[in-house]
Amino acid sequence: MKKHNFSAGPSILPQEVFEKSAQAILDFNGSGLSILEISHRSKDFVAVMDEARALALELLGLTGKGYQALFISGGASLEFIRVPYNLMQENGKAAYLDSGTWASGAIKEAKKFGTVDVVASSKDENYTYIPEGYTIPADADYFHCTSNNTIFGTQMHDFPETNVPVVCDMSSDIFSRELDFSKFGIIYAGAQKNMGPAGTALVVIKEELLGKTGRNIPSLLDYQQHIAKESMYNTPAVFPVYASYLTLQWLKNQGGIKAIDAKNNQKAALLYGEIDRNPLFKGSAKTEDRSKMNITFLLNNEAHTETFDKMWKVAGISGLNGHRSVGGYRASVYNAMPVESVQVLVDVMKELEKQA
Amino acid sequence: MKKHNFSAGPSILPQEVFEKSAQAILDFNGSGLSILEISHRSKDFVAVMDEARALALELLGLTGKGYQALFISGGASLEFIRVPYNLMQENGKAAYLDSGTWASGAIKEAKKFGTVDVVASSKDENYTYIPEGYTIPADADYFHCTSNNTIFGTQMHDFPETNVPVVCDMSSDIFSRELDFSKFGIIYAGAQKNMGPAGTALVVIKEELLGKTGRNIPSLLDYQQHIAKESMYNTPAVFPVYASYLTLQWLKNQGGIKAIDAKNNQKAALLYGEIDRNPLFKGSAKTEDRSKMNITFLLNNEAHTETFDKMWKVAGISGLNGHRSVGGYRASVYNAMPVESVQVLVDVMKELEKQA
Repeated sequence: MKKHNFSAGPSILPQEVFEKSAQAILDFNGSGLSILEISHRSKDFVAVMDEARALALELLGLTGKGYQALFISGGASLEFIRVPYNLMQENGKAAYLDSGTWASGAIKEAKKFGTVDVVASSKDENYTYIPEGYTIPADADYFHCTSNNTIFGTQMHDFPETNVPVVCDMSSDIFSRELDFSKFGIIYAGAQKNMGPAGTALVVIKEELLGKTGRNIPSLLDYQQHIAKESMYNTPAVFPVYASYLTLQWLKNQGGIKAIDAKNNQKAALLYGEIDRNPLFKGSAKTEDRSKMNITFLLNNEAHTETFDKMWKVAGISGLNGHRSVGGYRASVYNAMPVESVQVLVDVMKELEKQA
Repeated sequence: MKKHNFSAGPSILPQEVFEKSAQAILDFNGSGLSILEISHRSKDFVAVMDEARALALELLGLTGKGYQALFISGGASLEFIRVPYNLMQENGKAAYLDSGTWASGAIKEAKKFGTVDVVASSKDENYTYIPEGYTIPADADYFHCTSNNTIFGTQMHDFPETNVPVVCDMSSDIFSRELDFSKFGIIYAGAQKNMGPAGTALVVIKEELLGKTGRNIPSLLDYQQHIAKESMYNTPAVFPVYASYLTLQWLKNQGGIKAIDAKNNQKAALLYGEIDRNPLFKGSAKTEDRSKMNITFLLNNEAHTETFDKMWKVAGISGLNGHRSVGGYRASVYNAMPVESVQVLVDVMKELEKQA
């Protein structure tokens, strides 16, 4: 039986992506070759890469606006390093918002490159909210934030107005909601939450921001090199890029970000509605800052844990345990999660209430 | 019809790897989940990673000898950067052998970190041979070489005796031949030639060499961080690691490196024998330095090009064109290439001779 996969990442992808990518491993485009054994310079794969890059910009509404999209290796954690290498002046300064574990990881790496001004932090309350009311210094080389905090279930619903370039780690909510993406200087995202399998990351860059730091950047860490080589500076992660491409095609066929945003709102409303209605449960993030991707919640009475855990497992639900630093439960309801699966979880919660 | 895939990389893998990995995309280990959607922290994938790391050391004869094996992201090109970060002292010096395009790329990156002593180069003759008779300075922090030059079809058959740690890029001949691997300080290899699909790299490290540079290393570039987190510092490239694991299992079942070495010798002897016998062809690398992985050759008379190209394509051969910087032909005969496919190519070469 196919599971209802609420895993935080790697995570659920559309069923057609599984089927098409498995087929491509046996025979890619009728070529007599597997997608795993073809040259990344082959005509068919170059087309995949080019189309994936164009599709990413198209879905974000950034086509023709001076942006480049790259699918590069290393994971979003490598972008923690690439960003200061590419944007922070020698002896420069960057502003960072500390809204969770990954934001904090990005800050740690940036400090190895220069001055980091942490403009605000929600660490004081275990990152259960998104900080507000901070000021971004006008002389910062860039402002870095994390749009969605996978572990804590919080999400930025507004972004600061600033003249400083905004760099955003959107690993766990890229392509999930309508935003004016042209307000960002760099957007990056590991594929494995809302875009594809683990092994590639998307980086979307306003090209005019590059080449200004005076740093001697190692080639593979230099966005300009990747742009010049059209995301083929070195061998790309062929299969992860292909599966991401299939996922972006699926998204386009669903009606793009506008349509998926509506569906994601529906799923979040359904589950948060039950969390707030059902006396056995409570949300763990501040209500105004709740994430529509990672819905974190707790049992009011831990005595129900064993029963609840057994019930959702019997219902075919997988990956619902909260991160060890938060506890409780986390339902990750990424783009590919059907509303029917969320309903299965809600029904289990209602059933627990009846039994309790 | 399944092609005879002589591509230089990404390249042929065992058929059972295609079949098992396609199946895992539809359902991994009977879990009701795809390998593309499971958590990298799930018990089943942690087992894959642990077994893949152990198997790599076992196949190389390095178990219990102070080495660690990592499957990390970024590609071998990222190791060009990680190696100096981890082994070159601040204001230190490293020795590099320039035997081809990738060696030269590694040198370019190392120069951004300190002094690079290029002990010898074969660039003068377009890298058609492996330099000899050089001296490695005793005060170098390490000596870097490339064991096999994919583009030019040359291979190091001996390695220098030195007290300096030897770092070797084995991207295109890892697991292909018997060597005393304990002579190396670091061995690294992009997966996509002899070990798996594109998207992960294997790094094998003598652990005692680390932690001595005095550098403030970005976390993702620090081998000690990856070792401490058992190759899960950040989300690994789950599927590429899994497919690499299947390939290493296949290799073990074939009889390990000893058995594959004999098979690789047989394939190389068959094809080089024909190149040397057939008056229409000549090898393009110096005879003593010929690679057993990438067999480069030329037509003596380019007038036969069109006929030959048509003949091998009709025979179901793919990926035989030489790299643009060398021209002619390149037959990459990695571990998974059956001797029968090499025979198909040899038969075409004989048939051309008859017709010419």
